[in-house]
Amino acid sequence: MAYTVTMPVSPHHRVSAVVPVSRDDERVGVTYRLFGKHNEVEALARKIAFEQSVELPEEQVPDHIRAQVVGRVEEVSADVEVEGARRATISYAARHAGTHLSQLLNLIYGNVSIYPRVRLIDISLPQGFLQGFRGPRYGIQGLRVLSGVFGRPLLATALKPKGASVEALASIAANFALGGGDIVKDDQNLADDFETYKRRVEACARAVDEANAETGRRCLYFPHLTAPAGDFDRYLDYVAELGLRGVLICPMIVGLETTRDIAARYPLVLMAHPALTGSYTQSPEQGIDHGLLLGTLFRLAGADISIFPNFGGRFSYTRGQCLAISGRLREPMGAMSPSWPSPGGGMAIENLKAMGVDYGADAVFLVGGRLFAHDRVLRDGTRAFMDAIRGRFEERLTAPSDPAASRVEDAAEIQRYFPFEEGFQWKGRESSPYKDAGDLAFRGVRRVELVGKSGERTHCDLRYFEVQAGGYTSREKHLHTHIIIGARGEAVLALGNRRLTFRQHDIAYIKPLEVHQLINETDEPFGFYCIVDHDRDRPMKP
Amino acid sequence: MAYTVTMPVSPHHRVSAVVPVSRDDERVGVTYRLFGKHNEVEALARKIAFEQSVELPEEQVPDHIRAQVVGRVEEVSADVEVEGARRATISYAARHAGTHLSQLLNLIYGNVSIYPRVRLIDISLPQGFLQGFRGPRYGIQGLRVLSGVFGRPLLATALKPKGASVEALASIAANFALGGGDIVKDDQNLADDFETYKRRVEACARAVDEANAETGRRCLYFPHLTAPAGDFDRYLDYVAELGLRGVLICPMIVGLETTRDIAARYPLVLMAHPALTGSYTQSPEQGIDHGLLLGTLFRLAGADISIFPNFGGRFSYTRGQCLAISGRLREPMGAMSPSWPSPGGGMAIENLKAMGVDYGADAVFLVGGRLFAHDRVLRDGTRAFMDAIRGRFEERLTAPSDPAASRVEDAAEIQRYFPFEEGFQWKGRESSPYKDAGDLAFRGVRRVELVGKSGERTHCDLRYFEVQAGGYTSREKHLHTHIIIGARGEAVLALGNRRLTFRQHDIAYIKPLEVHQLINETDEPFGFYCIVDHDRDRPMKP
Repeated sequence: MAYTVTMPVSPHHRVSAVVPVSRDDERVGVTYRLFGKHNEVEALARKIAFEQSVELPEEQVPDHIRAQVVGRVEEVSADVEVEGARRATISYAARHAGTHLSQLLNLIYGNVSIYPRVRLIDISLPQGFLQGFRGPRYGIQGLRVLSGVFGRPLLATALKPKGASVEALASIAANFALGGGDIVKDDQNLADDFETYKRRVEACARAVDEANAETGRRCLYFPHLTAPAGDFDRYLDYVAELGLRGVLICPMIVGLETTRDIAARYPLVLMAHPALTGSYTQSPEQGIDHGLLLGTLFRLAGADISIFPNFGGRFSYTRGQCLAISGRLREPMGAMSPSWPSPGGGMAIENLKAMGVDYGADAVFLVGGRLFAHDRVLRDGTRAFMDAIRGRFEERLTAPSDPAASRVEDAAEIQRYFPFEEGFQWKGRESSPYKDAGDLAFRGVRRVELVGKSGERTHCDLRYFEVQAGGYTSREKHLHTHIIIGARGEAVLALGNRRLTFRQHDIAYIKPLEVHQLINETDEPFGFYCIVDHDRDRPMKP
Repeated sequence: MAYTVTMPVSPHHRVSAVVPVSRDDERVGVTYRLFGKHNEVEALARKIAFEQSVELPEEQVPDHIRAQVVGRVEEVSADVEVEGARRATISYAARHAGTHLSQLLNLIYGNVSIYPRVRLIDISLPQGFLQGFRGPRYGIQGLRVLSGVFGRPLLATALKPKGASVEALASIAANFALGGGDIVKDDQNLADDFETYKRRVEACARAVDEANAETGRRCLYFPHLTAPAGDFDRYLDYVAELGLRGVLICPMIVGLETTRDIAARYPLVLMAHPALTGSYTQSPEQGIDHGLLLGTLFRLAGADISIFPNFGGRFSYTRGQCLAISGRLREPMGAMSPSWPSPGGGMAIENLKAMGVDYGADAVFLVGGRLFAHDRVLRDGTRAFMDAIRGRFEERLTAPSDPAASRVEDAAEIQRYFPFEEGFQWKGRESSPYKDAGDLAFRGVRRVELVGKSGERTHCDLRYFEVQAGGYTSREKHLHTHIIIGARGEAVLALGNRRLTFRQHDIAYIKPLEVHQLINETDEPFGFYCIVDHDRDRPMKP
């Protein structure tokens, strides 16, 4: 069994690779909290196993599908946490567990979310399945290297309130950084159109940069990523180009799979916010367990840091729920990096001791309201907090550095100028005979990959093709489109049923699934530029 | 107040337009179910108004922000549905309600989802705000025109089970269509890599096509859209190119805003599946009301059809909850089309009468298991169901047609061949002096928009620019990149600090935010091709 995954090359380019997923005997385990007597729960678990895989009553499912696709009830046991409850574990063949995070969610809780009194408590994912997920790009170690801070928890705060001027927000950011804070993030209520966003984010980034220049440390600023779905990349590109190293994101609002996609494509720290998660976690009889959602699933989606309301604050989390999240974020999980728990809300210097005991050094303490007042107080408040942290943990500092490649640095290395040379060659680019057309026939074609295959940030590739006298390109069709420009000589462009003469500077657009071919019936070489989507489907026979 | 929205032109192209959003006096209303005495509920509502807008305690919020940004508690009243409950309505200035669906969700329920016993019951959106949303593209009338069926409910079924062969699924589709059914959709458990998806979807589409040729009607086939986040467009393109008219989608799994984005870009019917919604709807004390989530919010996200479990089936929905969804889908809501309620689950001919009374003619009845058996029985079962529907409703048929432009047809109209003409002109394309550089200085530049501005489906535009002797392009930088190809003459390419000679067939890649300019210091015209992302940011001064 194999499936196609999207491998990050640059944020705008996806390369589909077929990777092995799961051995035939590997199974995904899903554990629910159910209510009733042992045999009732067993019957309900069996019903769920059918519901979540084939959505048909048992008697309508053919034997081979029942054996291969339908879930198997593995165990029913008492639930020690909730009176009258039991836990049932169902397993599915890993190769039927879905080929991406959205479909995994569908399998583990899609329809049964609507059953009364079914709570999703745990999942177990086999190694082969986990290999399809990169998980957190930075995780605990990566963020330590990035910030240069070891040995103690990090201190974070939020820029707020919404409605404050850009200058006011930038001043908060600066003073928090000057006070020695580690991470300043946007409040999740901050949301702007792109032009306003650019102004605000640039001002805050500059304020933090200037403060960093003064302190010699690297306080990180994470703006909130929230935008219309199609605009994410624009916002992310801007953040990355500014040299910022992370963003705040709300996975349950933008979608877990969208979050994973961003984590896979951008070398940015993802700090996950729990907005909208309450509907899943609140009821002990329904929804998804705190640790599983804000720990395991957020980590699977690539969250480097997971914010949750600390117990004792204005939300109703218990200590057990907080420690479950914290534990899930850092427990062994395939080759995946552990992530940072970030308890927040109602935090004060007085409870630092207890928090240190509960969360240890690898935690991001998110402090809000108590630091806020006028600038001087904020800076001093931050300093006092930092001193208290250093009083309990032994801080070790290094020079901040970048464990994940920065895109800005990437771009600097890319060659950008390709002078034309005799015989339709380009300095800095190699020419090669074309031979990559599967079972499609062609003759006498050479190719020069000019732009797009070397990490450039464009959505299209530019290639030069040359067809010898008497040669032709393969007759093919595909979903992606072409733009072609004649460069030398003359050919016949077969476009659907038409035969067109194609010479230097002629232009053609080849629409989706249109059968096309270039045939050189002359005695001279024919050359053309071809512009094509970087991400594209494979050509098919007509 | 204005903000930038994304307007659909073609699925791959977004045009940002600044549209007026809300008058200053327009407010968004949000109603919650809360528990406690009147004054307790009032205080809690006030706390929520701060939590959801500025996330700060009252005393820390400056007066002007309190007046403009913080919500206002408008009303607290008894909740007749749940004993001991009250309803509190909070209003926010519409211009602070978020500029897109994700941020609206954040405002109405992000953080308070984590409060104990706060249920979101209703929202009211002013006209100006609603104008930013297209809503369902087809809605009730559009789908009737598309299918040519008037006067009666539509009958739908699901292709299942997962694990069945492509032939078996195609046979179900064919027999349902031959029996006279209206819509056949994939089961939401069907999820494949792209190549497998293509084979399955094509086989089922062909089976339905052939059945339609026999019946003379148009049964519609909606495959399930589920894919890694970055692959959606590939799947959607394929579905659209096959000539299919809709997809099944799970909005709470892929995200409401992602759903809206797809609805805005693709002329496809969206049939929404309720997977994962249970965590929101199940508890009367928590989450989001059934009608608001599966009705109003799904409709806002562009769902043409909203599936929900009918009461009396294997899920626990009540009649009141079903009718609330049904009502919300069809109630007046700005200029937005009404959508189809699609009750499903446990449906039989015997309860058609009651369903007809409850839902009326404008409903899609989703019938599953009861139609399934071997082919002949399925066809006959469908026919019996259709007869029963026609027995209760007066069917009127028209020739099926397409209320929303089909992309396939669009593409056919696009001109695709542009022969080169003397003086660097192209047949079919106009040349115009360049004048669109804002306050950036340039001299003697003309432009020909070759490909990309006329509805072509490519991610890049191709333009030709020509700079007169002594002329120059504007010195500028931007986030988007360029690829340029020399076409005639010679110029100086200023790239960052470098000055490069640029002649015919020379190639350059201009990286993000790199300052660049082309200067013609010769006595002849200089011309170049420029390849640029279709969606791009505005050039800035260096």
